[in-house]
Amino acid sequence: MDSPTVIFEDYQVEAPAEAGETILEVANRAGVGIATYCGGQGTCQQCQVVVTSGTVQPKDEAHWQQWPTATGEGIKVLACQSVISEDITVKVPIGSRAEDFIIHEMEPLKPKLVDLSRFEPLSPLAQQFVLDLPKPTLEDTLTDMERLRRELLNDEAELEPLTIDLPVLRELPQALRENDFQVAIAVTDTGLARKIAAIRPPTAAQRSIGLAIDVGTSTVAVELVDLDNGQVVGRAIRRNGQIAYGEDVISRIVWTQKGPEQLQNMHQAIIDTLNEIFRYLYDEHNAAPDEVIAASVAGNATMINFLLRIDASPIRRTPHTPPATEMPVVTAEQLGLNIHPQAAVCVCHPAVSGFVGGDITAGVVATGMHEAEELALLVDVGTNGEIVAGNKDWLMCASCSAGPAFEGVGVEAAMPATAGAVTNFHYSRDRDAVDYETIAGQRPRGIAGSGLVEMIASLVEAEVIDRTGNMNADFPSDRLRRSDGELGFTLFEADETAIGEPIVIYQHDIENLLRSKAAVLAAINVLLGKLDLAATDVEHVYLAGAFGAGLNVDRAVAIGLLPDVPRERIEVVGDSALAGAYLTLMSRQAREQAQETVSAMTYLDLSSDTDFMDEFIASNFIPHTDLSRFPSVDM
Amino acid sequence: MDSPTVIFEDYQVEAPAEAGETILEVANRAGVGIATYCGGQGTCQQCQVVVTSGTVQPKDEAHWQQWPTATGEGIKVLACQSVISEDITVKVPIGSRAEDFIIHEMEPLKPKLVDLSRFEPLSPLAQQFVLDLPKPTLEDTLTDMERLRRELLNDEAELEPLTIDLPVLRELPQALRENDFQVAIAVTDTGLARKIAAIRPPTAAQRSIGLAIDVGTSTVAVELVDLDNGQVVGRAIRRNGQIAYGEDVISRIVWTQKGPEQLQNMHQAIIDTLNEIFRYLYDEHNAAPDEVIAASVAGNATMINFLLRIDASPIRRTPHTPPATEMPVVTAEQLGLNIHPQAAVCVCHPAVSGFVGGDITAGVVATGMHEAEELALLVDVGTNGEIVAGNKDWLMCASCSAGPAFEGVGVEAAMPATAGAVTNFHYSRDRDAVDYETIAGQRPRGIAGSGLVEMIASLVEAEVIDRTGNMNADFPSDRLRRSDGELGFTLFEADETAIGEPIVIYQHDIENLLRSKAAVLAAINVLLGKLDLAATDVEHVYLAGAFGAGLNVDRAVAIGLLPDVPRERIEVVGDSALAGAYLTLMSRQAREQAQETVSAMTYLDLSSDTDFMDEFIASNFIPHTDLSRFPSVDM
Repeated sequence: MDSPTVIFEDYQVEAPAEAGETILEVANRAGVGIATYCGGQGTCQQCQVVVTSGTVQPKDEAHWQQWPTATGEGIKVLACQSVISEDITVKVPIGSRAEDFIIHEMEPLKPKLVDLSRFEPLSPLAQQFVLDLPKPTLEDTLTDMERLRRELLNDEAELEPLTIDLPVLRELPQALRENDFQVAIAVTDTGLARKIAAIRPPTAAQRSIGLAIDVGTSTVAVELVDLDNGQVVGRAIRRNGQIAYGEDVISRIVWTQKGPEQLQNMHQAIIDTLNEIFRYLYDEHNAAPDEVIAASVAGNATMINFLLRIDASPIRRTPHTPPATEMPVVTAEQLGLNIHPQAAVCVCHPAVSGFVGGDITAGVVATGMHEAEELALLVDVGTNGEIVAGNKDWLMCASCSAGPAFEGVGVEAAMPATAGAVTNFHYSRDRDAVDYETIAGQRPRGIAGSGLVEMIASLVEAEVIDRTGNMNADFPSDRLRRSDGELGFTLFEADETAIGEPIVIYQHDIENLLRSKAAVLAAINVLLGKLDLAATDVEHVYLAGAFGAGLNVDRAVAIGLLPDVPRERIEVVGDSALAGAYLTLMSRQAREQAQETVSAMTYLDLSSDTDFMDEFIASNFIPHTDLSRFPSVDM
Repeated sequence: MDSPTVIFEDYQVEAPAEAGETILEVANRAGVGIATYCGGQGTCQQCQVVVTSGTVQPKDEAHWQQWPTATGEGIKVLACQSVISEDITVKVPIGSRAEDFIIHEMEPLKPKLVDLSRFEPLSPLAQQFVLDLPKPTLEDTLTDMERLRRELLNDEAELEPLTIDLPVLRELPQALRENDFQVAIAVTDTGLARKIAAIRPPTAAQRSIGLAIDVGTSTVAVELVDLDNGQVVGRAIRRNGQIAYGEDVISRIVWTQKGPEQLQNMHQAIIDTLNEIFRYLYDEHNAAPDEVIAASVAGNATMINFLLRIDASPIRRTPHTPPATEMPVVTAEQLGLNIHPQAAVCVCHPAVSGFVGGDITAGVVATGMHEAEELALLVDVGTNGEIVAGNKDWLMCASCSAGPAFEGVGVEAAMPATAGAVTNFHYSRDRDAVDYETIAGQRPRGIAGSGLVEMIASLVEAEVIDRTGNMNADFPSDRLRRSDGELGFTLFEADETAIGEPIVIYQHDIENLLRSKAAVLAAINVLLGKLDLAATDVEHVYLAGAFGAGLNVDRAVAIGLLPDVPRERIEVVGDSALAGAYLTLMSRQAREQAQETVSAMTYLDLSSDTDFMDEFIASNFIPHTDLSRFPSVDM
């Protein structure tokens, strides 16, 4: 019998399968990049593919799963668990393509958000001291530890109690004597006490590097920072590998509730994601893991729980409170992060509640709204929408389930703001043509959050969709096609894209996006309403989250994602969570502010709020059913 | 060929050996208890035996060692590494007999030393709180951690910052929910912050137990304590298994300097010793490892370094300073101790220097000399001699290398104060007979420290030895025999002892004992001399260490171990290090005093002191070359 053949149709690849091989194995051999985290164990669920012709055999009944596809065409299976016994044709959906998990350099953060001059003198989470200690003599009999303490106290007068953990103390005597008492000492400063975290020969410690980390539900961003001066050496972003286990926090929590093994997998997925980004940054910037002596992490409560392998299921149950909001400082070794084993990994930004996490409180510290006279609003649109209103005297926050539509999940045409993502979009009805820009100037692979906002505005303007989000079935363009009974508008034809297939926005995608924007707008309005404030009282609107710097704020108001305030008051701040992580990495004062900000913040629970439900329904319209609230919008 | 036979002559056992068997294997089968820690790996060196006839083959050249014997009879080898190929006869020396490592119950400590009324209200190192927490609701949305904190603050107003380590936080959400928010919480109090160390169902936590531990160079003593009231549930003592690697701290340090594996073995030996004692106490007192939620440890600097697996070699080099005097608090899990994994193991008594360790500072706290008006002297005679002089205004200390003679090491007839040890001894010249008492009333197995003091005094009185320690070769008794040219005086004939062989004191043993007592007396006199004080200025002499409560203080002065002060001022305090560990286990105030005491203490280095050398030589006499210093001694 001839060996069966696998056709990967999106890649125009045809490859023979050997006896007993899985789709994943054939794909790997044929250079078709299918994403996998578990290395083909059947646990990570990353490698979902669609078999459109022929059938496959289960490799292992225990891990065997199959699902129908949305379009009804073919059957969805795990590539690693599907053994080939006959000729088959396979489609690799966008979410399963390895290139979606490529690490990208990212744009610098807004200078205003990461302005260290607010926090001088700097006092990073870890600091390196190169010491030339006097050797012990009969006249100078201090212990190794006291000898270090004396020298560090000379160096810096206001040192807190200086402690050392056993693993480092075990290294101390030999490290001192092998290096003739000339050593580089890393001291971490994480709260109650300073701690000696690393002892090295001075030659091995040319740099002291820290990491600022934003663990987002959809994407993970990391900055490699020179701790001596705060300079960002490199930055990179990548999809969160946990996406294999669910697109939003709730579905991930549900998955981990199956058992401790699932929680462990979820934990490992973020550790693997981080280590992969670290490796990329080390390669790009010629750094070594041992040079990294501290990490400051921001993230929502669920992400932080998973990072630390803590059961997050209480967040899913009423009253949606996480096990803890303030987290113990841990060592890299405890988590398996590929940096100096004794480096402090500090969740410097506590959460307020299960749904207003440290990513948001980090944003408050980064925008400085907690120190300003003027009333400001921080709006973070991610998988959830979180809103903070306030100034130096008070802070109030709320959250809503926005759905990850603007983050590139749940809308087939959407993708995170990484290379190939469309950030600017305009559809011209006259020319039946699209003008656009993509990240890194590549051919389109999908639409980023900012592009989605412009797309909605543009399609409303062109009357492809009406103000309720319904597609106009009579719209005179070939782009409008019906697929399995559903209307879709082709944004890019297959030959224009980098993925070899068209990028289409469907009716249900528009509905998803509308629900997302409606939830955010409703949350803003209810929060302001409780405070007897109008949107126009707000002096600054900081828009954080999935939207890149390129977001057209006029369009964001036009579709009713943001309230109608003078446009110059709206500022797209980008990844303010990462900015907060950066500030707390570099400054003790920022770390203290992060704590104080959380203590000062009041949480408004919208989940049982009837006003919110009313506002949400009224906001499921472009821009809003009450157009008098959007006087400036004329679209 | 017939299988060869092994004769264990001390045990009157004859056993056949199978092909390739080692002496240890045959002994185990024949019920001859040879001590071993490494289980026959050739690493612990515990199973040394003397082959007096026939020869053996090396099992493994890498571990093969052989030594000549002191008497020249036979050859000393490791039982586990000696393969039998022909008939042999084997002697098992006392130090290699498993029964020497038996765990014994010990006498209670002196009530005065462990009087908790000095430290009320009690605040143990760990405390258990049984909580019935209100469940989270929409009105009461505190996190699990804040919920605990609120309840514990209600319970006790002055709680310090309450922290939690990651492993315990990981257990928290499930532990609360599985037990309907009714839980027993163990909180440890170890300095900067209180820490949640354990969370259990209330039913599983009937007792909260702590351990007071004295890690001595020769013996290890442990008390099992009810943390709720300080009641001692049980106590036990056992030889320190590290004896296999050397009898005193210096020889053990030398051994660990061979490499990290040796340091690991040394560390493991004390962990194994402790776990063995714990197991005994659990069995005797129906306790479970998980009930033990804290351990307070006292020990000399070397023992503490080995306990924590820290390189102790700096203690051996000038200026003999340990890597650290104050040690980080660790968890039982970090060391592998068989108690609750998150239980705090706290070296509550810091060392002053390499040779004045936490065992001594523990003794200071236990005697209360640091709080008294009157001048006191603490004398600890162990492997080293350590002396502290002072009162509430000042404290000064010194150490000398006394040698472990009084601890039962290096003097063949000597043994630690465990079952079968002779504690009281009197030789009657008229009757040529010995009157004696032993621990547990058993037949003599060896002479304990107190017995050695009485023996020397008695032999001087009877003129078996003169005041320089020389045996009188003309002494008219059969007990005086010459063996290999050396005089020895038989204290017990073979048929009187539990070991089936005579207990003999040799000329060189007397010299060892004299050097030990001379070092102690010289250290006392030099220390007092530096302070311009006479022995008679001292109001209290606390004698700690190897001597049991039964020591005849008059005899201790008579041989010149202690200076000639009124006898009622001398108090034998026994294991004051264990008493200190007990106090710090039960009281935060004691823990604070332990720290302060060390800060207040001045260390006098005798190693380079010429006065000390002069005094040492003058003290190598019974009681002293200058008899005017011992006016009350008339022997």
